[in-house]
Amino acid sequence: MPKMKTVTFSANWEPKSDFKLGPKDIEGKLTYLGSKVWRNPTLQVVEKEIPEIGPTEVLTKIKACGICGSDVHMAQKDEEGYIFYPGLTAFPVSLGHEFSGIVVKVGNKAIDKRTGIPYQEGDAVTSEEMLWCGRCRPCADGYPNHCERLQELGFTVDGAFAEYVKVDSRYVWSLEELKGSYKEADIFLAGSLVEPTSVAYNAVIERGGGICPGDNVVIIGGGPIGLAAIAVLKRAGAARVILSEPSKSRADLGKKMGVDYIINPLEEDFTQRVLKLTDNLGAKLYLEASGLPDKVFPDIERTIWEGKQLNSVVVVVARSAKKIPLTGEVFQVRRASMVGSQGHSGHGIFPHVISLMASGMDMTSLITKKVSLGEIPENIILLQTNREECKITAVFD
Amino acid sequence: MPKMKTVTFSANWEPKSDFKLGPKDIEGKLTYLGSKVWRNPTLQVVEKEIPEIGPTEVLTKIKACGICGSDVHMAQKDEEGYIFYPGLTAFPVSLGHEFSGIVVKVGNKAIDKRTGIPYQEGDAVTSEEMLWCGRCRPCADGYPNHCERLQELGFTVDGAFAEYVKVDSRYVWSLEELKGSYKEADIFLAGSLVEPTSVAYNAVIERGGGICPGDNVVIIGGGPIGLAAIAVLKRAGAARVILSEPSKSRADLGKKMGVDYIINPLEEDFTQRVLKLTDNLGAKLYLEASGLPDKVFPDIERTIWEGKQLNSVVVVVARSAKKIPLTGEVFQVRRASMVGSQGHSGHGIFPHVISLMASGMDMTSLITKKVSLGEIPENIILLQTNREECKITAVFD
Amino acid sequence: MPKMKTVTFSANWEPKSDFKLGPKDIEGKLTYLGSKVWRNPTLQVVEKEIPEIGPTEVLTKIKACGICGSDVHMAQKDEEGYIFYPGLTAFPVSLGHEFSGIVVKVGNKAIDKRTGIPYQEGDAVTSEEMLWCGRCRPCADGYPNHCERLQELGFTVDGAFAEYVKVDSRYVWSLEELKGSYKEADIFLAGSLVEPTSVAYNAVIERGGGICPGDNVVIIGGGPIGLAAIAVLKRAGAARVILSEPSKSRADLGKKMGVDYIINPLEEDFTQRVLKLTDNLGAKLYLEASGLPDKVFPDIERTIWEGKQLNSVVVVVARSAKKIPLTGEVFQVRRASMVGSQGHSGHGIFPHVISLMASGMDMTSLITKKVSLGEIPENIILLQTNREECKITAVFD
Amino acid sequence: MPKMKTVTFSANWEPKSDFKLGPKDIEGKLTYLGSKVWRNPTLQVVEKEIPEIGPTEVLTKIKACGICGSDVHMAQKDEEGYIFYPGLTAFPVSLGHEFSGIVVKVGNKAIDKRTGIPYQEGDAVTSEEMLWCGRCRPCADGYPNHCERLQELGFTVDGAFAEYVKVDSRYVWSLEELKGSYKEADIFLAGSLVEPTSVAYNAVIERGGGICPGDNVVIIGGGPIGLAAIAVLKRAGAARVILSEPSKSRADLGKKMGVDYIINPLEEDFTQRVLKLTDNLGAKLYLEASGLPDKVFPDIERTIWEGKQLNSVVVVVARSAKKIPLTGEVFQVRRASMVGSQGHSGHGIFPHVISLMASGMDMTSLITKKVSLGEIPENIILLQTNREECKITAVFD
Repeated sequence: MPKMKTVTFSANWEPKSDFKLGPKDIEGKLTYLGSKVWRNPTLQVVEKEIPEIGPTEVLTKIKACGICGSDVHMAQKDEEGYIFYPGLTAFPVSLGHEFSGIVVKVGNKAIDKRTGIPYQEGDAVTSEEMLWCGRCRPCADGYPNHCERLQELGFTVDGAFAEYVKVDSRYVWSLEELKGSYKEADIFLAGSLVEPTSVAYNAVIERGGGICPGDNVVIIGGGPIGLAAIAVLKRAGAARVILSEPSKSRADLGKKMGVDYIINPLEEDFTQRVLKLTDNLGAKLYLEASGLPDKVFPDIERTIWEGKQLNSVVVVVARSAKKIPLTGEVFQVRRASMVGSQGHSGHGIFPHVISLMASGMDMTSLITKKVSLGEIPENIILLQTNREECKITAVFD
Repeated sequence: MPKMKTVTFSANWEPKSDFKLGPKDIEGKLTYLGSKVWRNPTLQVVEKEIPEIGPTEVLTKIKACGICGSDVHMAQKDEEGYIFYPGLTAFPVSLGHEFSGIVVKVGNKAIDKRTGIPYQEGDAVTSEEMLWCGRCRPCADGYPNHCERLQELGFTVDGAFAEYVKVDSRYVWSLEELKGSYKEADIFLAGSLVEPTSVAYNAVIERGGGICPGDNVVIIGGGPIGLAAIAVLKRAGAARVILSEPSKSRADLGKKMGVDYIINPLEEDFTQRVLKLTDNLGAKLYLEASGLPDKVFPDIERTIWEGKQLNSVVVVVARSAKKIPLTGEVFQVRRASMVGSQGHSGHGIFPHVISLMASGMDMTSLITKKVSLGEIPENIILLQTNREECKITAVFD
Repeated sequence: MPKMKTVTFSANWEPKSDFKLGPKDIEGKLTYLGSKVWRNPTLQVVEKEIPEIGPTEVLTKIKACGICGSDVHMAQKDEEGYIFYPGLTAFPVSLGHEFSGIVVKVGNKAIDKRTGIPYQEGDAVTSEEMLWCGRCRPCADGYPNHCERLQELGFTVDGAFAEYVKVDSRYVWSLEELKGSYKEADIFLAGSLVEPTSVAYNAVIERGGGICPGDNVVIIGGGPIGLAAIAVLKRAGAARVILSEPSKSRADLGKKMGVDYIINPLEEDFTQRVLKLTDNLGAKLYLEASGLPDKVFPDIERTIWEGKQLNSVVVVVARSAKKIPLTGEVFQVRRASMVGSQGHSGHGIFPHVISLMASGMDMTSLITKKVSLGEIPENIILLQTNREECKITAVFD
Repeated sequence: MPKMKTVTFSANWEPKSDFKLGPKDIEGKLTYLGSKVWRNPTLQVVEKEIPEIGPTEVLTKIKACGICGSDVHMAQKDEEGYIFYPGLTAFPVSLGHEFSGIVVKVGNKAIDKRTGIPYQEGDAVTSEEMLWCGRCRPCADGYPNHCERLQELGFTVDGAFAEYVKVDSRYVWSLEELKGSYKEADIFLAGSLVEPTSVAYNAVIERGGGICPGDNVVIIGGGPIGLAAIAVLKRAGAARVILSEPSKSRADLGKKMGVDYIINPLEEDFTQRVLKLTDNLGAKLYLEASGLPDKVFPDIERTIWEGKQLNSVVVVVARSAKKIPLTGEVFQVRRASMVGSQGHSGHGIFPHVISLMASGMDMTSLITKKVSLGEIPENIILLQTNREECKITAVFD
């Protein structure tokens, strides 16, 4: 059996006293509440067998795979040794889900959605991370991001910090459209950013309802999702894209993504600045991408209240357990709405993002550091404290 | 000059110490913050001159006019003597805005939107209460409920607790379509309910996005708006209409409006009941019509979280200054959204409500008591404490 | 091996001279252009083995299965002996796809979308007819009705004019919600109508965008889809549902479905009647369900032109190769639109229809004749000429 | 009384034999069917009095005013001497409606929608051409483009080929936002293009539903509306904007507007080219802006049929009395739709276009020739035959 190198993540199943096995949890193996169960995580580069594929699957040789914030939280532990990451997990697993690569083996029913025939060896591809079941009610209704029987690549199924990864063709998307627009190596860098960009696209276009060309938007938080949202909304015709972000390095990345104005919310009055920059309108869309909704929401709400803009939509994409103190009257008087956003699958999102990348939306400057597969563990650790890097990405020859 | 009887409302302009004259307020006359300014209200039946009309106006002889909660709050005073009603007010004014009547005089440019020619004497009509300006940005964009230069009938302009009322034709709507479906007297009872029903219609159809036939809905609060929403949503094809309301008399009115199930939130577990009644789905639309959003929202949110329904919309129509403690994660995982709703104008709402009334949606059982014009002051006072009556309506010969 | 009775359909693969094997056609077996290939059809009741099921499949004992127009067209032949039905076909096959039954065997991964766990023996169920692949671009994007690799139950895969049918659980829907609303036998009659009702629901709600309560609608053609659309739109809150249909027996069925007014287009002026019935508005939604778009469209267009209604939508659901002579100017001046509609899958359609049936929308009067499985062939032939019957349905003990 | 120069248009009221006075026509003065009535047109530069304004009106000193195709058609006559322009007209009238200028007099109620207070002298402004009434059913419902009592600036009311024009403030829009983005003179050139750009914006964004970033679009016809649509859709995030246009000079203007690919439909196979350019998808949105729908529609339809794109929308914006031969089956199988588009008012269109112009969408290269007011008559005549010029615009010192 041929072998490959991969970054494997392990932890001990030691449930906290208040943990109860959920209906979909599997004792000792899988839980929807990671931080309640998994203790003493370890990250190692190991050898595994290259996976065998079934008739609907594709084997991909990885060319690039970026570190996601969730990778960082999985390896981060609290004082009792439990992992930070609170969600769906099944260990041990190979991490990595923001990837691109080259098809090396194809099942005979592994259809390429772009061509309607099976993938070809040599095709450049990427993949969704959410492995939706395709047969529960949300999947049948067209909402795969809310699949009731979700598996997640790099969380419950072996991921792409590896030389090879196996994925069912239904989650795979061709990157062939990028050829011609990018240099060879950059195709794969761009391709590894399709997944996080799709999270932003889902938030602002699918869930936020998009904008009309000429609308203003405000992004709160310059992490990878906020930064990707800047690029998408700039492309969608925003008159003014405003980023609220205290970090200088993140703000600089915002500029590369096309931001028009930056607010430092620690030094400036958010509402006053937004109103000044927007001719007293405010924004049609506010994206909460900071993870601090309790902190930033009052400012958003005051801006909606004081601005002339009607029909503002607040999209909450960053995860947080904090309560948002919402004033109904503001949403009544200003005809506003609030939506939650989750996921990146379905709704034509991946192919739209790829088409945008093929036609001028270059996200590759989000990658601030390139490393080898072997350096991934230490860089996952690095990102627990480093706030300067944006995407650290493993690249492969 | 011919005279008429009318119920006039007066109060003294005695601003509280923390009140500042707003940009659109007029010293001694008009404010956007009624409860900060007006003191020692009085309600009297007086004689006034019958209004003269201009070329675009209609003079209507009133046939029915119902008491609205805002009428009650205007006449209700706190311990210092200030009125309860917090909004736009200009006194003295004749109250009354939920009315119907017969056209007795028509300006030559007072176009009937139903026919495209001027109203005819004898036409049965009703009117919007929101006197939108038609030339500010919200009006020009199609959002008259958010007019920046709003006047309000029965709040800042003489209303319909009177023998006659004058209204610009742009706010007037024909009730001629009701003829044939109702007995003569009932046309006007129905017509006096078009305005509050339109507030409900705006909330659940225009702002809430309506439902697909077969969806479930939950109405929280069985006041006039909640009750009207029941009728509208039942008609819109809800599979199950559930009302959460502790009052027996309100619940009984809910049944008359077509409710399928009633929850007493003081005695039952809201979430468990909703899930049991909906085959564990929950509802597509939740209407907050109780005015207690801080109290009821956690239950709504828990139901969204535990039910299988995706894409739930929470519509907040009742006014309250209370914060709503919203959990972003619930709205993310369940693909939910929250909207505020205000007003009844525009979007074809009045004519749709009239067409519904003409084709079987009978709201007249909401009128629990009929009185004469002279009895209106005492009944406005009565409603400060009485919780049994729903609509008390002045009827005219 | 246990056996069962089934109605099998055969024909000879004798392509016409102008037929070319398409990219997805399979020589001698499957074609997208039925009427170009299949000759000398035969219908027989035969014995087959009861199908074995896989882990995601469900075996259902049939309780009711209705004859669809496409069944009739498959068995109908032109003068050269070719079948009428022009679409996707693979013979020999057991016909029948409008069915309901009782689950008798369940794969261990055959998830019930209603409960999230596998189906239970004894469950009442129905199924979609469109066997979408779940992995092509349209399926991934949420449009299973436009699957690029469609199979069809009773057309290319053995259907439900049989004692048992095997279907993958992703297409199966529980009818358990109907229990309590219907008598035992009627559950299955209703259940056999979910599929055609879903075609209508997809047309008027999903594709037509639904209506606002109080809108008027016109249905052109009182076949099963038009009749089902009446029931759905009546439930959706139409002020007036108008059916244009020359046949007395179809018009009578329309009344049972809730139609308000009937137009006989052979004897009355369609436009004048619609305008008279709608207070000169016309309709928000016109459903072309007659199959004669070239004949009826000019009348629809004239009604849109002469009525006051803006934003009318014309939904074309009946199949026809005829050109529709559309006048752009009418659609410009009246802000109108035209959409095509196909299929019944996805978008939550099946469960919404089932919920409607569980809450008062009784379609069973569409079934005008009940027969045994053995009588199906002769009744399929009967329907080639009989215009009085609506649904002829096989019922099983 | 102070005087000003203006280009006045006259013609004789000599109705053709088949003309009947319509319900809104005024004998000798106004008709909805211009080409049936008006004969022997003349264009002259004359002196008129500078208009007096009312309390809601604004007097504007014109800085730029472009010639529209409708101006050309008004002055063009058939062999019997009747004008080409078929629509709403009242003569004599000063032509001109694509204008910008400087406010010189303001009524005390002439509110600026941007600031909420009256316009200020010196403000740069433009205006809608459609003088909607604000009180008919379409206006009340939010559809001013379909006003039942429309007047039109430069068609029935004196327009802007004049030194001054008077317009009610409800139709006026501030161009102050353009200051800072344009040189002084270019503000007014840009401002004179807001109206035609708004026609395009209404077509592709409001009526066409906009696009998702990454969609492809095809514009058929490179006249001013098609060219403006290119700029709007490019800005809206189209992956590929394709223009079908045989004229070299128009194609070159298309490139200035941002077109990605040009098809010469006289020399190339439209469908093959579109499919090749779009990776076999086709387009999400097709804009018929050629005025030859009977000619171009079959190609659009074939492209929809052969491409993989679902949910295509065909927007018909150019006026034509020709029938469009639409195949329902194509719209069914491809889930497509067709909409008509008319007008430029409402829906926030003007301010969105102005914000786009203020943030980088520069349309001024559409102006291919600048002339003086006195040269307008000869240039209106010139455009009857010249196909090289796009916008010819009168500029004022």
